[in-house]
Amino acid sequence: MSETDPSAVESFRAAMRRVASTVNVITICVGGERMGITATAMSSLAMDPPSLLVCINRFSAMHGSMEDVSHFCVNVLHRDQENIARMFADRRQHALRFLSGWTEDCVRPPRLIDAQASIVCRRIDHHRFGTHSIFIGVVEDAQVREEVNPLVYVDGQYGGAVD
Amino acid sequence: MSETDPSAVESFRAAMRRVASTVNVITICVGGERMGITATAMSSLAMDPPSLLVCINRFSAMHGSMEDVSHFCVNVLHRDQENIARMFADRRQHALRFLSGWTEDCVRPPRLIDAQASIVCRRIDHHRFGTHSIFIGVVEDAQVREEVNPLVYVDGQYGGAVD
Repeated sequence: MSETDPSAVESFRAAMRRVASTVNVITICVGGERMGITATAMSSLAMDPPSLLVCINRFSAMHGSMEDVSHFCVNVLHRDQENIARMFADRRQHALRFLSGWTEDCVRPPRLIDAQASIVCRRIDHHRFGTHSIFIGVVEDAQVREEVNPLVYVDGQYGGAVD
Repeated sequence: MSETDPSAVESFRAAMRRVASTVNVITICVGGERMGITATAMSSLAMDPPSLLVCINRFSAMHGSMEDVSHFCVNVLHRDQENIARMFADRRQHALRFLSGWTEDCVRPPRLIDAQASIVCRRIDHHRFGTHSIFIGVVEDAQVREEVNPLVYVDGQYGGAVD
């Protein structure tokens, strides 16, 4: 079976619909402009050094800038922030994205003040693969919202996690 | 702040406890032996080619073999498979792991027959980073269990996802 077999793509899509992922907004600041994108493809990488990775589509508006920045922030969304997930997934809502709730300086990447967690990373490496790039960040600082109730995406729906 | 700042490690741990992840068992077959490890650090990578990545600790028993195999399988666990997650996370249960419920041939990596999804990948690349390696696989075949109810790990607990 070749890697472009359409049935492999279809069955992979069906499999990934069955994977529950926490929803994040990845943010950067470039030339005084704040940018962000909703992403579920984020994973912890190592504790030594403390690090994570995010996968970003090379055809997204933010990809080129991600290759240039020194830092990015992974804003892990709380279950009550579904509206923010939708806003950063929809280009038509571009003008609304940073209106309120975010840090305003552009020295560091924007933090969502009330996020489930916000993790500022120094971008230290990236690997292109197919339509996407893997960006690796070493964690410099993380802040958390105490109550644990992250926003989860599974089977095309937003929801939460339960014991 | 340096990358080895202990407070960055602690705050990163607190942040990652707030991220809900689906639980998987990554399997390989090496020299006629079936091996597996529980892992939450898995992410979809791209649809072209259909691909994913898993992060594996370099000090785990399976890491060395992962560098040698041609294929691995990501067995996404269903919520009713918490016992399997625990079994593959605990070395003392090594002898019990493949007793039942798995494909038995060693031509392909083991599939958990009743998994939420099982995704067979051709391992095509890996990147070492700190204590871990990122393994990239191109999806050759995926099978799913119809009902969507993956096993989720968050805040040190197993659970599920809800709308």
